[in-house]
Amino acid sequence: MTPDTCAPGLQPGQLLARGVARHLRAHDFTCLEEFSPERGRRLDVMALGPKGEFWIVECKSSRADFTSDCKWEGYLDWGDRFFWAVDTDFPTGILPPETGLILADGFGAEVVRMPEATPLAAARRKALTLRFARCAALRLHASRDPGLGLP
Amino acid sequence: MTPDTCAPGLQPGQLLARGVARHLRAHDFTCLEEFSPERGRRLDVMALGPKGEFWIVECKSSRADFTSDCKWEGYLDWGDRFFWAVDTDFPTGILPPETGLILADGFGAEVVRMPEATPLAAARRKALTLRFARCAALRLHASRDPGLGLP
Repeated sequence: MTPDTCAPGLQPGQLLARGVARHLRAHDFTCLEEFSPERGRRLDVMALGPKGEFWIVECKSSRADFTSDCKWEGYLDWGDRFFWAVDTDFPTGILPPETGLILADGFGAEVVRMPEATPLAAARRKALTLRFARCAALRLHASRDPGLGLP
Repeated sequence: MTPDTCAPGLQPGQLLARGVARHLRAHDFTCLEEFSPERGRRLDVMALGPKGEFWIVECKSSRADFTSDCKWEGYLDWGDRFFWAVDTDFPTGILPPETGLILADGFGAEVVRMPEATPLAAARRKALTLRFARCAALRLHASRDPGLGLP
């Protein structure tokens, strides 16, 4: 069984995100995929830990997917730790050594390099937690109540 | 079309909660139903506003449902405002006049009495926002990924 047959319609990066989100539960983190911390910016996976820590995970399905990404350094301002998630075929040597590394597939993942934490300022953490909370509740509401009539 | 035919399986209180949650979107609040702010306590609807305000809504489907509730005063410590949600047949005169009042059915609702705000302490608001965020994200995750394997 390949991930494709198990989850038709998911793109390679979304499959990695699914595996990452499953695994991060083992770290007691709860995840939102495609979370926008501010207008015009979107993170593949934003994970929120039991003490309010934010971990950002960007999923890269290929070398080209990584090298064409010129935005990632801007993401460092939005989390306490930053990770790449890639599959086992990815040339991990091209990734910046100070960033975190997660090996993943569509079913699960493993943290293989834990990056240093660079804690968010308190005001940003507060605003981000509220934004995360409202985004998650709104998505859940829309999924539970098709009559909600969101645009 | 009655609410029952539209939403088979929902209890009367859950139908009120659905209408409340829909309506509170118009106030830009996002809702979680059956949210537990601490172990052993469960709120029918917890709503989180754009500035981090928490509104609690307890849904009562009948006079007996209200008079048998001896826990509600303890809920006041967990929100900035507290409301009852009832249907139009409910004898609203028996509800404490200082509490908020929402008239609801399974399709929508209306705030008919806005209670005074008694703001939460900052530390409690912070902890509650984190708990709300993690609860919403975890429920969403479980609904999106049946393979998550939650207990």
